[in-house]
Amino acid sequence: MTKPRSPDPDFEARVRHSFAEQRAMALLGASLGAVAPGEIDVILPFRDDLTQQDGFLHAGIVAAVADSACGYAAHSLMPAAARVLSIEFKLNLLAPAVGERLEARGRVIRAGRTITVCRADVVAVTGATEKLVATMTGTMMTVI
Amino acid sequence: MTKPRSPDPDFEARVRHSFAEQRAMALLGASLGAVAPGEIDVILPFRDDLTQQDGFLHAGIVAAVADSACGYAAHSLMPAAARVLSIEFKLNLLAPAVGERLEARGRVIRAGRTITVCRADVVAVTGATEKLVATMTGTMMTVI
Amino acid sequence: MTKPRSPDPDFEARVRHSFAEQRAMALLGASLGAVAPGEIDVILPFRDDLTQQDGFLHAGIVAAVADSACGYAAHSLMPAAARVLSIEFKLNLLAPAVGERLEARGRVIRAGRTITVCRADVVAVTGATEKLVATMTGTMMTVI
Amino acid sequence: MTKPRSPDPDFEARVRHSFAEQRAMALLGASLGAVAPGEIDVILPFRDDLTQQDGFLHAGIVAAVADSACGYAAHSLMPAAARVLSIEFKLNLLAPAVGERLEARGRVIRAGRTITVCRADVVAVTGATEKLVATMTGTMMTVI
Repeated sequence: MTKPRSPDPDFEARVRHSFAEQRAMALLGASLGAVAPGEIDVILPFRDDLTQQDGFLHAGIVAAVADSACGYAAHSLMPAAARVLSIEFKLNLLAPAVGERLEARGRVIRAGRTITVCRADVVAVTGATEKLVATMTGTMMTVI
Repeated sequence: MTKPRSPDPDFEARVRHSFAEQRAMALLGASLGAVAPGEIDVILPFRDDLTQQDGFLHAGIVAAVADSACGYAAHSLMPAAARVLSIEFKLNLLAPAVGERLEARGRVIRAGRTITVCRADVVAVTGATEKLVATMTGTMMTVI
Repeated sequence: MTKPRSPDPDFEARVRHSFAEQRAMALLGASLGAVAPGEIDVILPFRDDLTQQDGFLHAGIVAAVADSACGYAAHSLMPAAARVLSIEFKLNLLAPAVGERLEARGRVIRAGRTITVCRADVVAVTGATEKLVATMTGTMMTVI
Repeated sequence: MTKPRSPDPDFEARVRHSFAEQRAMALLGASLGAVAPGEIDVILPFRDDLTQQDGFLHAGIVAAVADSACGYAAHSLMPAAARVLSIEFKLNLLAPAVGERLEARGRVIRAGRTITVCRADVVAVTGATEKLVATMTGTMMTVI
């Protein structure tokens, strides 16, 4: 795919400002990593209070960071005035979500005027080792 | 569908015990509501620190309670020694998640030996009013 | 849910006319059953040439009739000039698709101005017996 | 990802034999393309009798070839005696499915003992031009 471009030269500031307003991300301890047009990383350090009954990160918490990564990947390609809305997403859990931190790598697959489709691969990082633990496909809507 | 039965007479205690070990649910302030064979409700009071940039509950938080409702609905029909694992889920967001609280109503659609498929309707409750805000279909695996 | 109404008094003729233009449905031998606002049934008699390697109806064929049922359920609630487009769907296969015929029962869960979310339960019918063999959740877009 | 290996040296013959038994593929005119461990292509020449009301290939037909590509990608990594079953799949439609032919490229993302997760990108090919028209994520089960 050719590298996408944002119609908004200030897309990075806009994405970072909006992400900072997602209070749920603050509660979970998630932060923005790399921000590029159509490509957003969200970082989540492992914490015991984010786990399910077996001590792995809860699938819903994995979904939360993957959804934010998808949403902002879509948002980064939208006009300055646009808001982004998640219509639906699907998450496949591939391996137990354990490690030092998760990285959810949201990438736009297809950006349309109204509908943008994104994928987020979620990897668990421990030292120099990465393991794919989940993958999301999500549909995002541009709201003007 | 005929009313499902659990092979484990102590399924309710087992479900409540396991749910109490999901530390992520405690962080979000979610609790178990009604527990019946194949039918589990999870309750989430609205809190400002669970929101996304527009002040609605974050889609990932909605996913988290819906996934727990699906997982325990499946778990309630499993043998006493079994663990439950989310393989995948899909969430459609139907309306902004705002209100006094969410109720995620997990219901088993088809219970198999290895694979159980569940649905969770998520309603926002405000006073006597209910509004369907999201619906999940999830696939759960029995691990012995 | 309150019974939905169509903004188009001629919705049934419109749905039947459009369905007749789906040449893929003719190839598979599928036909429209009941047509009501937000509720469309598609009927598929079993045929050996629709099967996969184990002699069950191919999951893609099940998807085809479920998608048409969802699409026309959405279409039935749209204005007369609108076209309907499938954005995405997810199908869970619950039991082998065998029997005299399949019935895919498409129902609108939430109709919006741009986005309509539908569900289709697919049952295999043999004599007086029905068995749920698959369930779809699909997202449809109104195109004007 | 490291290149996957099949536990069955005769996996290609096994896959081709099983595909030939999918009578639905013959009806649609679909055939197997490249077959490698964890990587299966299914080819579908455009035909007017596979279309929906706007003259594009029907989403269900797209799903059918994508599901077969996913299923056999999973199957290629299974032991010789195993059968493969689609548990669920999700298809996002990204662009109108028109062109000389479709190619559904099924790839295994994660192969487990019981559960294998696959992706299939579906491209429309016209001359030397390719366009991504759909993407599927599917969950397949090994049945022994």
